[in-house]
Amino acid sequence: MTHSFLMIGQSNMAGRGFLKEVPSIDDEKIKMLRNGRWQMMAEPVNPDRSTSGAGLAATFASSWRLFHNQQDDIALIPCADGGTSLEDWAVEGPLFQNAVFQAKAAQKISTLQGILWHQGENDSNGQKYRLYGEKLALIMKTLREELKVPDIPLIIGGLGDFLQDGRYGPYFNEYNEVNNALIQFAKDHQHCYFVSAAGLTANPDNIHFNAISQRKFGIRYFKSFQQKTNIWESLPDEDHIIEAIHNRSLTKNEKIARLQYQFAMGAVTSNEFQEQLVQLQ
Amino acid sequence: MTHSFLMIGQSNMAGRGFLKEVPSIDDEKIKMLRNGRWQMMAEPVNPDRSTSGAGLAATFASSWRLFHNQQDDIALIPCADGGTSLEDWAVEGPLFQNAVFQAKAAQKISTLQGILWHQGENDSNGQKYRLYGEKLALIMKTLREELKVPDIPLIIGGLGDFLQDGRYGPYFNEYNEVNNALIQFAKDHQHCYFVSAAGLTANPDNIHFNAISQRKFGIRYFKSFQQKTNIWESLPDEDHIIEAIHNRSLTKNEKIARLQYQFAMGAVTSNEFQEQLVQLQ
Repeated sequence: MTHSFLMIGQSNMAGRGFLKEVPSIDDEKIKMLRNGRWQMMAEPVNPDRSTSGAGLAATFASSWRLFHNQQDDIALIPCADGGTSLEDWAVEGPLFQNAVFQAKAAQKISTLQGILWHQGENDSNGQKYRLYGEKLALIMKTLREELKVPDIPLIIGGLGDFLQDGRYGPYFNEYNEVNNALIQFAKDHQHCYFVSAAGLTANPDNIHFNAISQRKFGIRYFKSFQQKTNIWESLPDEDHIIEAIHNRSLTKNEKIARLQYQFAMGAVTSNEFQEQLVQLQ
Repeated sequence: MTHSFLMIGQSNMAGRGFLKEVPSIDDEKIKMLRNGRWQMMAEPVNPDRSTSGAGLAATFASSWRLFHNQQDDIALIPCADGGTSLEDWAVEGPLFQNAVFQAKAAQKISTLQGILWHQGENDSNGQKYRLYGEKLALIMKTLREELKVPDIPLIIGGLGDFLQDGRYGPYFNEYNEVNNALIQFAKDHQHCYFVSAAGLTANPDNIHFNAISQRKFGIRYFKSFQQKTNIWESLPDEDHIIEAIHNRSLTKNEKIARLQYQFAMGAVTSNEFQEQLVQLQ
């Protein structure tokens, strides 16, 4: 069985962590949607821009794997788009329509189990927070209707506390109000849970969660999904779970996939590839 | 006005050239579709796998720019998927359905002007070439009907002559027959043109066109589109056009986009970013 999750929102859902800062996650039971079909996950999961990198979905999926039947697959449906406002996600717009199409394609080959949302940086000025809850409610209500998932969990994450520290700080002067709107939204809606970004840190741009913070955030998203609860602070076992995920032993198929990647990228010769493949098989 | 082109096929349409081997192409008038909206092109244009890289679409678009009104945009709709057979592209399947959805999304914001196809490696054994033309005809007929484009050019490229030289050589023992089927298809169908891969070379895997060959192939695809003709051999001015594309001076917006990328990736500090931005503006 394949359990799928829809990823929507802006850049911090797509992921901008620098991939060189964290070990890769290779797990043949974690898939991602590409052109309507599942492929083994490889970051960036959500390649919306050339800056795409590590996102929270990778450890969300890995944590899910630690707590579920090892025969089941988890699968990610990446539809987040960097720099987008809540208005850009209006139900008649291209982002929403694309997300519905992708999710429906995934539903043909999996069971949609949850919706992961992270958005709000682009609404952190000009008093947009005042209508945030109302607008998000219409988007999520319509999405649930279109996909026929009235009661699967919707997990919404908070904005980073670093947003006002950087060059674009003045642009995010109402990020706290947006966070409050997200919290209020979770309180007001059934099957919706808020996940705090407390303590998470940023890339040098002070806009995007860095790679290790995305690893932590994904674990919080999973705990929220698993326990159907809000998460108000960092979890005591985040580092421990990340270590377990990064240190997981590769299966034969995963080792072969890595080798094939190296061959395709010209990092091993044809002879080396052949020799190593024989050893693996 | 925005002129769009649909990219379909398997890995050599998606592009697997190593990006480090060629200069980047930055042109604010070349767009690519992401989540139903246009973004400035950045390779990989078609991120179907972690091995995605330079593809033919980049110089197809750049060549188009050299010969068209400088006010117009050209835009790419990436729907190619690595390792897919012609059977995988059947009209009821996810690849075809995804391509139709993406192209229709693009048609809301552009005029679809052409279809770029490169596929056939996966059909180069087991006598699949015998039905290749017939199956491709149904796919293209249905695609033209769905998108209401009965007479825009369809450009189909040949397979590389290196396919039998490498580790997977035996798998491609009928690549020549597939090439003949592609040529025959172009002869049999109006508004369809064949582009030879003569002289093009491969990555060390002997499966994928290398980056410089993809640059050349894109120019051949464009010449075929522009002149509505088959291309049977390499063009005398390929190197010259590639040089012109790679040496093009950047506009202010393109320089700013590059700087923003460097800042997002942590390659310039906040202060350096600020200083260079002021200089550019």
